[in-house]
Amino acid sequence: MVGAADFVGRDIISIKDFTREEIDYILKIAREIEPLARSGSDILKGRIMATLFFEPSTRTRLSFETAMYKLGGSVIGFSEPETSSVKKGESLADTVRVVEKYADVIVLRHPSEGAARFAAEYASVPVINAGSGAEEHPTQALLDLYTILKEKGRINGLSIALMGDLRYGRTVHSLAYALSLYDVRLFLVSPDLLRMRREVLEDIKSRIEIFEHTSIEEILPEIDVLYVTRIQKERFPDLAEYAKVRGSYRIDLNILSKAKSDLIILHPLPRVDEIAVEVDSTPFARYFHQVENGLITRMALLALILGAIKE
Amino acid sequence: MVGAADFVGRDIISIKDFTREEIDYILKIAREIEPLARSGSDILKGRIMATLFFEPSTRTRLSFETAMYKLGGSVIGFSEPETSSVKKGESLADTVRVVEKYADVIVLRHPSEGAARFAAEYASVPVINAGSGAEEHPTQALLDLYTILKEKGRINGLSIALMGDLRYGRTVHSLAYALSLYDVRLFLVSPDLLRMRREVLEDIKSRIEIFEHTSIEEILPEIDVLYVTRIQKERFPDLAEYAKVRGSYRIDLNILSKAKSDLIILHPLPRVDEIAVEVDSTPFARYFHQVENGLITRMALLALILGAIKE
Amino acid sequence: MVGAADFVGRDIISIKDFTREEIDYILKIAREIEPLARSGSDILKGRIMATLFFEPSTRTRLSFETAMYKLGGSVIGFSEPETSSVKKGESLADTVRVVEKYADVIVLRHPSEGAARFAAEYASVPVINAGSGAEEHPTQALLDLYTILKEKGRINGLSIALMGDLRYGRTVHSLAYALSLYDVRLFLVSPDLLRMRREVLEDIKSRIEIFEHTSIEEILPEIDVLYVTRIQKERFPDLAEYAKVRGSYRIDLNILSKAKSDLIILHPLPRVDEIAVEVDSTPFARYFHQVENGLITRMALLALILGAIKE
Repeated sequence: MVGAADFVGRDIISIKDFTREEIDYILKIAREIEPLARSGSDILKGRIMATLFFEPSTRTRLSFETAMYKLGGSVIGFSEPETSSVKKGESLADTVRVVEKYADVIVLRHPSEGAARFAAEYASVPVINAGSGAEEHPTQALLDLYTILKEKGRINGLSIALMGDLRYGRTVHSLAYALSLYDVRLFLVSPDLLRMRREVLEDIKSRIEIFEHTSIEEILPEIDVLYVTRIQKERFPDLAEYAKVRGSYRIDLNILSKAKSDLIILHPLPRVDEIAVEVDSTPFARYFHQVENGLITRMALLALILGAIKE
Repeated sequence: MVGAADFVGRDIISIKDFTREEIDYILKIAREIEPLARSGSDILKGRIMATLFFEPSTRTRLSFETAMYKLGGSVIGFSEPETSSVKKGESLADTVRVVEKYADVIVLRHPSEGAARFAAEYASVPVINAGSGAEEHPTQALLDLYTILKEKGRINGLSIALMGDLRYGRTVHSLAYALSLYDVRLFLVSPDLLRMRREVLEDIKSRIEIFEHTSIEEILPEIDVLYVTRIQKERFPDLAEYAKVRGSYRIDLNILSKAKSDLIILHPLPRVDEIAVEVDSTPFARYFHQVENGLITRMALLALILGAIKE
Repeated sequence: MVGAADFVGRDIISIKDFTREEIDYILKIAREIEPLARSGSDILKGRIMATLFFEPSTRTRLSFETAMYKLGGSVIGFSEPETSSVKKGESLADTVRVVEKYADVIVLRHPSEGAARFAAEYASVPVINAGSGAEEHPTQALLDLYTILKEKGRINGLSIALMGDLRYGRTVHSLAYALSLYDVRLFLVSPDLLRMRREVLEDIKSRIEIFEHTSIEEILPEIDVLYVTRIQKERFPDLAEYAKVRGSYRIDLNILSKAKSDLIILHPLPRVDEIAVEVDSTPFARYFHQVENGLITRMALLALILGAIKE
């Protein structure tokens, strides 16, 4: 049986490090800790979280910082490598071995693949991966699952579509893997150029059935959860190609006329124009709910790995 | 009758949104809360303030942050747009709808006119305008009023001169409007090029008498409060013109020999050389007192809009 | 007799402002406060520290911030001048007179010689020098002493070598002075180009014996404490000269075969390659211990100057 003790001192590097039972346990603790997101608490009083952001990510940084403050803890850190010792040529291993003297937990964001796992190997305090390279963003996957569970009451049995840039977007890699631990029908909708990489696909296909499409229209009527990600111009060698793709991967009221009435739309944010602003006020839109769920999920993780959950 | 309940959840966008009675009430609460600026308190424990500074303003940011800490709350935010999601093309509306999930109040500084009011329309939590565009800086106007009230014991009946750049300085627009709600004689002293804009003037003239001058010397003997602002070189097409103007809008001991003995000099800071350093040690100088009064006024506003004042 | 009362409200500008008895007292308080570095405390609850970093120094800033949080206080400030009012041309004197209205103590880092002392003259709250110009870094010297005392049980009677850039490194100047108050044998090991400046040397020589060397090898067998600093390429007019020097001022397992078994190696960090990574896992390596001792020493200083130590 999975319990709180299994998480104390643990690194959160990849969603793949967690079993289905462990993920379910985290989601259960998130549900229980949710009232503290409103009331605040002192359960991490005197504890310090370091946010080491080697690439900027205001949203993720503010989410972690708020989570720590809501639990009564303090926060140190930097939000840009330019202001850090890194500029003086210090290695990540040394940075981590310094910061662990100050902090009880390190939240790391880094442009390089594997940086979070590398840091965790050197650190004597737990490390949470807040995004490293193109591969992993485990807390985003957990908050996505938590949002689906909260909004739909379950994850199993749902038809879920991931749409947009499935090749480079780190959030969809972590999420697709996480979903493959559940009994879902997974639709991957992207232009050919931005299909999910074969190695990610193979891994997921070993557990659940996957349906690949290049258009959302034909499948939208059967979808329960539509997860939209941004398609970046820079990915296309040819602007004409980009212009074509862009139009057909944009969600607006017109296309939503074909959707189930209880469809929910998620997005990791920031959104540019891949979801029309007119959608914001419909019941489909749950992307801003995700933000609050991110706060709650991160509160649950911090409380768990710092040993503040007893059960 | 104005009471604390009138302020709970309220946005602070423009000084024009407040009646004379409401302003007087804020100043009264500032006076009452002043002891907490020294002792600290826990009346906003568990509450979170977000400082979203889309243009840097160390002074204003530190003032708000200190106010929140003195009340026992926590602070998240960013001090430069470069480190924020804005770089990724996110709209202000989306940024606000994300941050409101984290924070109980948003303090916004933005280079564009109207940005604070726009943000307030989207946010479900109160928004405080910490300066937007060239027009409004309402908390600066409130702290200026509080300083005058505290130092002179009253606002009504005073002769007050605003000097320097009255065209572009946002603090003087808010302050001139606020003063026009009181029974004061208002002197506007500026080079022709930097006269207060007609539309601001007309509005004020409908309530109080205004005297425009291009030199402070002739009127200084009758002034009770001299509010100095900086004249920026960039405003002048011609450096020779600037050099001429600069000299005659500089306050030093020599010119002050003509002042009333109980004149007080205010300045929104930062000061460059428009007030000579030799003035700092005279009893005229109250510009550093303003800093402390800014802290107190902002504590009062935060406590009021977050519902921590009961009466 | 030195007591806690001697430190209340005191500036920490230069190690030279402290007598041997005062330094010993600070080290004693550091030892006593050490348990709070783990448990946290509330002895500075409601107090605010401002970190004004006019040049970036992540390590030092995080150390001070953690120290303040561990004592229950709050922190405001900036980590880069670009985001501060300084950009608008404000003088350091004005910045300090503003910030003292917000903070109970100011921690200043500045590229100019004398900036900290200058700031302290204007500030009515205590100022701690967190590094200014090339001369002084008093809290680094104190943490170095504390590390030596803790690791060796004493300072008197030890043979201590300072190695590397002794000309420009501000930490070695403060440390060499501090050590000269004790009964130690001091070895200075550097390339000719980077010898300690004559004026620093003369001052120290008046109190203790000094031995200058250009190579560590010959003296290593008699050394108890080896303090390594980085040699920067930019100091050398000629890259060939730098390459030659660099090799012989690098500590690795090979050279350490000649060391005493209880030698300890210190380094102010960040380290680049002047200590080989293979040394990290040996008992010689104490440079990461210094980091924790820095936190403890700064907690002691903050508690002392803010009057939280009673004895």
